[in-house]
Amino acid sequence: MSRVQQSSLVKLAVIPGDGIGPEVITEAEKVLDAATASSGVRFEKTRFSLGAARFLETGDTLTDADLEAIAGHDAILLGAVGGVPGDPRLKDANIERGLLLKLRFELDHYVNLRPSKLYPGVPGPLAAPGDIDFVVVREGTEGPYVGNGGSIRRGTPHEVANETSVNTAFGVERVVRYAFDLAERRGKKVTLVHKTNVLVHAGGIYKRIVDEVATEHPEVAVDYLHVDAATIFLVTNPGRFDVIVTDNLFGDILTDLAGAVTGGIGLAASGNINPDGAFPSMFEPVHGSAPDIAGQQKADPTAAILSVSLLLDHLGLRDEAQRVTTAVEDDLAIRGQAARSTAQIGDAIVDRLQA
Amino acid sequence: MSRVQQSSLVKLAVIPGDGIGPEVITEAEKVLDAATASSGVRFEKTRFSLGAARFLETGDTLTDADLEAIAGHDAILLGAVGGVPGDPRLKDANIERGLLLKLRFELDHYVNLRPSKLYPGVPGPLAAPGDIDFVVVREGTEGPYVGNGGSIRRGTPHEVANETSVNTAFGVERVVRYAFDLAERRGKKVTLVHKTNVLVHAGGIYKRIVDEVATEHPEVAVDYLHVDAATIFLVTNPGRFDVIVTDNLFGDILTDLAGAVTGGIGLAASGNINPDGAFPSMFEPVHGSAPDIAGQQKADPTAAILSVSLLLDHLGLRDEAQRVTTAVEDDLAIRGQAARSTAQIGDAIVDRLQA
Ligand SMILES: CC(C)[C@H](C(=O)O)[C@@H](O)C(=O)O
Ligand SMILES: CC(C)[C@H](C(=O)O)[C@@H](O)C(=O)O
Repeated sequence: MSRVQQSSLVKLAVIPGDGIGPEVITEAEKVLDAATASSGVRFEKTRFSLGAARFLETGDTLTDADLEAIAGHDAILLGAVGGVPGDPRLKDANIERGLLLKLRFELDHYVNLRPSKLYPGVPGPLAAPGDIDFVVVREGTEGPYVGNGGSIRRGTPHEVANETSVNTAFGVERVVRYAFDLAERRGKKVTLVHKTNVLVHAGGIYKRIVDEVATEHPEVAVDYLHVDAATIFLVTNPGRFDVIVTDNLFGDILTDLAGAVTGGIGLAASGNINPDGAFPSMFEPVHGSAPDIAGQQKADPTAAILSVSLLLDHLGLRDEAQRVTTAVEDDLAIRGQAARSTAQIGDAIVDRLQA
Repeated sequence: MSRVQQSSLVKLAVIPGDGIGPEVITEAEKVLDAATASSGVRFEKTRFSLGAARFLETGDTLTDADLEAIAGHDAILLGAVGGVPGDPRLKDANIERGLLLKLRFELDHYVNLRPSKLYPGVPGPLAAPGDIDFVVVREGTEGPYVGNGGSIRRGTPHEVANETSVNTAFGVERVVRYAFDLAERRGKKVTLVHKTNVLVHAGGIYKRIVDEVATEHPEVAVDYLHVDAATIFLVTNPGRFDVIVTDNLFGDILTDLAGAVTGGIGLAASGNINPDGAFPSMFEPVHGSAPDIAGQQKADPTAAILSVSLLLDHLGLRDEAQRVTTAVEDDLAIRGQAARSTAQIGDAIVDRLQA
């Protein structure tokens, strides 16, 4: 993991994106500035205009020049990308594949890190949630997300549409190792989630590699759940999880559900990590661009702010990261029902950091 | 759908299976007998010994002769199959693929029908569940379940393990039509669940066909959700669903979660339906064989009993089906906390049917 020298410079690429993205990123940046004001680390920010809005203006999703420029940074902070669902002008754009997933794949973000914690005072949908505090380590560069699909006789009664999940020992091993290392620093438990009884090959490679890596971590308990059963436990006994390791698609599903049971994806942060440091890692809220509430100061910036905490932690700014998390935690504890604007929530968290 | 003439004979294949399977099937059969005693329809039952136990005895999972014999029946009632997880003797068996999925595929069970209803008096994990009453129409013969996978350099650092989801217009259209027809008889709403933004081809064929079939059903509202978002709604607003149509894998995941939010998979029934009637349909609880509690009269037979109701309905025995559901509903309403044995629950439901 790249570590920032104190009193050094961090080149940060900021992609506010579409919908509520710019609003939550404004608050996230305020918090970043406040948290690092006295750290001796200076953040040099470059803004990238990317997303549906940019596509509608220029027809570009992510050019080679964009990618190269972004790759030259130390880290990326992203709001959310995606236009209004069903917008006919975006019909062939697929901002998700062409921008978000392209960044994750090109920048080799093989760990998609998604912590799930039910903070005190946060209302959730479960009647008896118990203690929820786990991290999903979602593989980010393989599996059903590779875009290895195609169709023949499209649109006819004889169409066949295929989609291939590609999984490699190289790709699985590195993410599994990350999960075990993380578990060593946490609750010492790794749960593999897959569907080995049906996806014999894709599941088999995960199972074998988890079993192998487990022998190097005798202190870490290893558990396996089929993905269907895992969703049950997420609502009946989420306390059983410490570190979940899973593929790209199952990780996508489990983390939205995990977000919901811990108070909503308005609170769910994530990091797309390249642990080797060859490429900048990217931090973003799990939620989307929510165009229906964009520009109304209704969005909760908490997920973006907690993503800043993950970013700081990744840069080795542990104290700063912890201070952001604590400020969020303290704010969450007294939130209650009173509606605040996006900026009011950001300001309240900044105030705590400055107090 | 095959319809039974009153005063005719139904040839029923019974597969009790492994673990708690035989226990719950005993109760399900009692209920079937009681519900149809005065119906004029006679059930001729043939028991098939299939599952992990049979495999351990004979090395057979499902022989051609088994399959042919089962296919000669009018319907199938199945308990649960699968041995003790991790049993080394079952290492290469894969009872799930070789038996359960083989039956679904060979008998062309293209509709996997899974109703989810929160019955009055049933405790669930959600703080404010609201009215939950929807049906998942899960495709049963295609998608990631086709077993179209493989690996090279298995067990080496250069392994590549692939798994291909296969989807055809033929296969998607028939299950989508079933979903729309069902919605016409229910709440007139179909929600397609997929991941079209990532699985462009597999998702695209579903989206196109749903849009096409929708034009023939102007009364039916059509909704689309990505699978990750769908899991959120299942815990925050399950009342929004009427009929969900989805692929084999997403259906597997959503129905376990749906079972959990409606009081547990001990209550979740399912039908593997061949609507054309070319092959017998198969009815089974969503739960597995739970070897850890097998033989202890601890299993809840309700899911198996509700599967009998689906079976009766499928055979055209509407009144009998309704009587079973009502008896279960009345029993659930007064269950409270007192633990009863598997047989006591079955007997209580039989008593209601005979009252
Ligand atoms: C927008 C979409 C492509 C993305 C994903 O599926 O990974 C999102 O759901 C997420 O979880 O970050
Ligand atoms: C046992 C397994 C193969 C099966 C499935 O994945 O379909 C089960 O989970 C189910 O839902 O009936």
